Amino acid sequence: MSRSIGDLGEFVLIGQVTTRLPQRSEIILGPGDDAAIVAASDGRVVATTDLLVEGRHFRRDWSGPYDVGRKAAAQNLADVAAMGGRGTALLVGLAAPPELEVDWVLEFVDGLRDECDVVGASVAGGDISAADRITLGVTALGDLAGRLPVTRAGARPGDLVLLAGHAGWAAAGLALLGWASRQAHPLPDDLAPLVAAHRRPAPPYALGPAFADAGARAMCDVSDGLVQDLGHIAVASGVSIDLLRAGWDVPALLAEAGAVLGVDPWTWLLGGGDDHALVACLPPGAAAPDGCHVIGRVAERSRGVVRVDGAPWEGVAGHDHFRRSAQPGLS
Amino acid sequence: MSRSIGDLGEFVLIGQVTTRLPQRSEIILGPGDDAAIVAASDGRVVATTDLLVEGRHFRRDWSGPYDVGRKAAAQNLADVAAMGGRGTALLVGLAAPPELEVDWVLEFVDGLRDECDVVGASVAGGDISAADRITLGVTALGDLAGRLPVTRAGARPGDLVLLAGHAGWAAAGLALLGWASRQAHPLPDDLAPLVAAHRRPAPPYALGPAFADAGARAMCDVSDGLVQDLGHIAVASGVSIDLLRAGWDVPALLAEAGAVLGVDPWTWLLGGGDDHALVACLPPGAAAPDGCHVIGRVAERSRGVVRVDGAPWEGVAGHDHFRRSAQPGLS
Repeated sequence: MSRSIGDLGEFVLIGQVTTRLPQRSEIILGPGDDAAIVAASDGRVVATTDLLVEGRHFRRDWSGPYDVGRKAAAQNLADVAAMGGRGTALLVGLAAPPELEVDWVLEFVDGLRDECDVVGASVAGGDISAADRITLGVTALGDLAGRLPVTRAGARPGDLVLLAGHAGWAAAGLALLGWASRQAHPLPDDLAPLVAAHRRPAPPYALGPAFADAGARAMCDVSDGLVQDLGHIAVASGVSIDLLRAGWDVPALLAEAGAVLGVDPWTWLLGGGDDHALVACLPPGAAAPDGCHVIGRVAERSRGVVRVDGAPWEGVAGHDHFRRSAQPGLS
Repeated sequence: MSRSIGDLGEFVLIGQVTTRLPQRSEIILGPGDDAAIVAASDGRVVATTDLLVEGRHFRRDWSGPYDVGRKAAAQNLADVAAMGGRGTALLVGLAAPPELEVDWVLEFVDGLRDECDVVGASVAGGDISAADRITLGVTALGDLAGRLPVTRAGARPGDLVLLAGHAGWAAAGLALLGWASRQAHPLPDDLAPLVAAHRRPAPPYALGPAFADAGARAMCDVSDGLVQDLGHIAVASGVSIDLLRAGWDVPALLAEAGAVLGVDPWTWLLGGGDDHALVACLPPGAAAPDGCHVIGRVAERSRGVVRVDGAPWEGVAGHDHFRRSAQPGLS
């Protein structure tokens, strides 16, 4: 039987974790002291935090520890990208039952580290504690490299709305996991990329600074669902947004998953969160960076509203953490 | 019946929370976007994070929401002080059952805000989610104002060990709460300051930068117990530390609480955590700042060891989050 973190003790565990964490040059002081010290050479720091709770944000039977680490890091590093920045450091609080295997924690840490590698960040500090369920508090710090931050508040009528990264893949993958579990049915192999997108989202990090450099007036990451997250931009900017399905293909994988589950794939495309795609509003005529496509346009009438093909979207509204959601198996 | 956060919904709750949070000038972008942006004018940022779990770090029947907010902020802002810095911003993740009253959250936020006021920090961002138990992920950012950080690793033989702030008060207060609960006995009024110290620690924030300016070679905050936390300095610095009880009075309140509970008050003074006092090692001859006193000296032999009056301390060893601890009522 593998060893538990309670057997090992808090301080030995911290030692085993920190030896797995290389520190890049921006980390002036890494793990092991009262606080970390991170370079902030442009005189500002981007900072964002999220809590992830077992059974709410992930299930241990559906995601391995390495995947949970990748995802926990990705969702915070994507928030930094959504301001136009690049993640430099992660701080990670882990609360877990003493019975949890040491290997679970070490593989989780490897996942954090490898996702940090994608953008050149380091896991610079954290905290370990006990809880009945695995609970993660992840904070990302980031660097704007002299750029103006791109908020949600600057979209103007006439701007193009551009999407980079997958939309709805993670939600479709989660729906497939729920379906396979209920049916005791194996998942179709060719749909594995959707399940992988749930377990390990791949945010288009480089597009954050690229959108900023292209003159983006508003940007956010898609964590609650495209319509809902664009709604945040619409409210903050005092505009409405028109999405046009005609210019946009339904990915074959989403169409196939929709056929298997009897679900309209637009439900996932427009209402599914957790892919951490980036959506940005660019002035007309701006040169869009590679790796994105136009999905709509900013309009003026009906401020705060997002329309799909000219009408309010009647699909799944997106995610409220206190309400039953479209996430089967995750409450 | 008061309204629950599930009735209110995540986004209305976030709106009610953020209107209670004034943003100081160092906050370039506050709550409401993908990330906050905080000034880091000396080109570095101090960063530290902690998780607090209901039933482990606080009990709702023993601490009100305002106290929980003060404490959650204090323990992170104290970590910033322990590097020689001043807290500038807090990011706070809150996961809670949908049934939780809205008022609990708003009073908790007021506590965060008021503790931030003590050092001039702002609650600049956060995250709200659902969980079976209230779980808090608190991250503090801070500013060194050009100072070198004071780590745990610089203590040298001959340095004086100085303490600022209470030691053992919070642990005694927690013991009193457990005793009163078991006995169904009211707490003696004159011991209320000890209970208050558990509910709302008062770290000596200003002493962090003051110790740094006085030339401190090592510093940490006392969160796990004085002997244990000095042990971290002893290990990191490759020294041993001698505490001398003779130079140090047992506070009358601790003596009285010890008499009531039949506990040696040195157990709390040397082994009790959660006061977030600061201990620093200063070179002999350095001018100690006001508000601290000498409790021992750094020695060379037996590296990593902390002795009390020349012998290993046989009292309560301090806190390991995965083990049963000296914290009655909190696991």
